[in-house]
Amino acid sequence: MFKATIFVTLRESVLDPQGVAVKGSLHSLGYNGVKDVRIGKKMEVLLDCSEKAEAEAQIREICEKVLANPVIENFTFELEEVA
Amino acid sequence: MFKATIFVTLRESVLDPQGVAVKGSLHSLGYNGVKDVRIGKKMEVLLDCSEKAEAEAQIREICEKVLANPVIENFTFELEEVA
Repeated sequence: MFKATIFVTLRESVLDPQGVAVKGSLHSLGYNGVKDVRIGKKMEVLLDCSEKAEAEAQIREICEKVLANPVIENFTFELEEVA
Repeated sequence: MFKATIFVTLRESVLDPQGVAVKGSLHSLGYNGVKDVRIGKKMEVLLDCSEKAEAEAQIREICEKVLANPVIENFTFELEEVA
């Protein structure tokens, strides 16, 4: 069994409206030191698989096909064997 | 200037309907090895601040008051000095 921790973030060049909104809220609350906010996703996937290489291939495929939109998003992931 | 990388995740005991939905989609696509999916947020905040201790205090306050709902969510963050 493997646990994959996946991070999906918008590409640098893509505007992040959710981040812009949060930055605006923080400014209106007086946190004027906040210069930029970018918001992405952290996903934890538990995968029943015996081989690490196979788990890695499957997680990569899932990220490319389902969890991230490669046109506007980047993804990275870490794999950890769990009991 | 400091960059804070903040992770906000639902507490273990809280049902994650978004994760349940993603797991269902992955199963229907044939990824039956997926046993669990939990979805959280990764936020990057750029903070104009000269002292690390002050940056840490401010980010903690922002997390507690704005970015996380302490009733159902946990947060962790890392601080890194940037140019």
